[in-house]
Amino acid sequence: MKKGALYLVPAPLDFGCDAPLPPVTDVLPLATLQHMAQLPYWVCENAKTLRALLKRVDAVQPLAQPLQSLQIAEIPRAWHKKGDHQGAPDMTVARTLLAPALQGHDMALASEAGMPAVADPGASLVRAAHLLDIAVVPLVGPSSILLALAASGLNGQNFAFHGYLPQDMEARASRLRQLEQTTYASGASQWWIETPYRNTALLHHALQVLKPTTLLCVGSGLTLPQSDIHTRPVKDWRAITRANGLEKLPAVFGLSRP
Amino acid sequence: MKKGALYLVPAPLDFGCDAPLPPVTDVLPLATLQHMAQLPYWVCENAKTLRALLKRVDAVQPLAQPLQSLQIAEIPRAWHKKGDHQGAPDMTVARTLLAPALQGHDMALASEAGMPAVADPGASLVRAAHLLDIAVVPLVGPSSILLALAASGLNGQNFAFHGYLPQDMEARASRLRQLEQTTYASGASQWWIETPYRNTALLHHALQVLKPTTLLCVGSGLTLPQSDIHTRPVKDWRAITRANGLEKLPAVFGLSRP
Repeated sequence: MKKGALYLVPAPLDFGCDAPLPPVTDVLPLATLQHMAQLPYWVCENAKTLRALLKRVDAVQPLAQPLQSLQIAEIPRAWHKKGDHQGAPDMTVARTLLAPALQGHDMALASEAGMPAVADPGASLVRAAHLLDIAVVPLVGPSSILLALAASGLNGQNFAFHGYLPQDMEARASRLRQLEQTTYASGASQWWIETPYRNTALLHHALQVLKPTTLLCVGSGLTLPQSDIHTRPVKDWRAITRANGLEKLPAVFGLSRP
Repeated sequence: MKKGALYLVPAPLDFGCDAPLPPVTDVLPLATLQHMAQLPYWVCENAKTLRALLKRVDAVQPLAQPLQSLQIAEIPRAWHKKGDHQGAPDMTVARTLLAPALQGHDMALASEAGMPAVADPGASLVRAAHLLDIAVVPLVGPSSILLALAASGLNGQNFAFHGYLPQDMEARASRLRQLEQTTYASGASQWWIETPYRNTALLHHALQVLKPTTLLCVGSGLTLPQSDIHTRPVKDWRAITRANGLEKLPAVFGLSRP
């Protein structure tokens, strides 16, 4: 029997942001919206969040079947964030989640914000799909990392993304210095993200730790009306004392040698 | 006077591919198409390519003014590929290219495929925009790197992109081994691209050089009808002897420890 495909479905970057949210057509192409409206089998991080997103899709691209009749499975906790993508996936769990595709139906892996499996759970499910010879089809949508990288003016030919930095102050300071050393040695821009409510504290910490001439990029609320992205030497960031409002918005941070 | 913004305009991933090309609505959201149809001032790699893209946009989202009346400037050769993104931009060149924004008009930086300034020229122009206090607004569209990363099942929490590998066989072998060592040491997935006509030779070379158990991802023709992405141990790739057709499609390569 022909297997179904696993579609990777991106989501807008406004998860957890204050209403009014921009229309999904701002960031999701028609082909992505059409797939979202058609697919009956879903794997996601949180079923409630997915239903809220599909309601927004339904407003511009009517769903092929009622929201209540969709089959939605959640990624197990053990596969979330840090545990995911390490080593071989648990194939018993994977076969259950991928059962629709194994039975010949197209299915979706959804994200809460941006692309699934990029700074987001899901990599284990995708790895398992490859092992089970299920075709994987990524759909186009927004990625805060990619948008920040393009809009930073920093090195987009060579770059590295590091996920979240350590929360412990000492460990974070040493990680920031290590990323700074890396970009001075290689020229590659270095990127990371933080949970919104910690953004301001992280920025202040980075400004303490980094060299005055190192270039720092902060991109926040990308694709939203509040979208803001700046690349400046650390010393110029230090001179900006006003409240930055960063703690309410998803943000991406990057640094580079001058 | 209020300055205009610099919009970063992504392009479909079918540049140089055989017709029929998929509709632009497959990969560009309505908001991106609307901006493309409105913006009168453009900077791009090649004016002819840009006009061909805008004709495709016009078919689904009519342009606000005739194609012939758009003001299109090309990025100087010195800023292409490897020279771009290194050190401070030439501000005399930048002020000329960014003149519309300095005079209060919104303008666009366009790519031939994917996001401008990511594995693509344009970073110097964006850096200059930040230095001149011109707002930079990235629009959503496809990025082969991001799509391959998501669909690979490899580590999407920690990854590095390296642009093009050296063409010299010896230098390339040593670079491939170095990337392999890096992923074994750090767990981060390692990514690069190649010019389509060299894809098959590069793949065969990588299969010679890398360890049998190292995971290799090859994603080609992403977003196109021929879209194909697989992640397999090197030893499994070696067992696949059929012609791969890779030399006609844009492709992204990634590797990871198992």
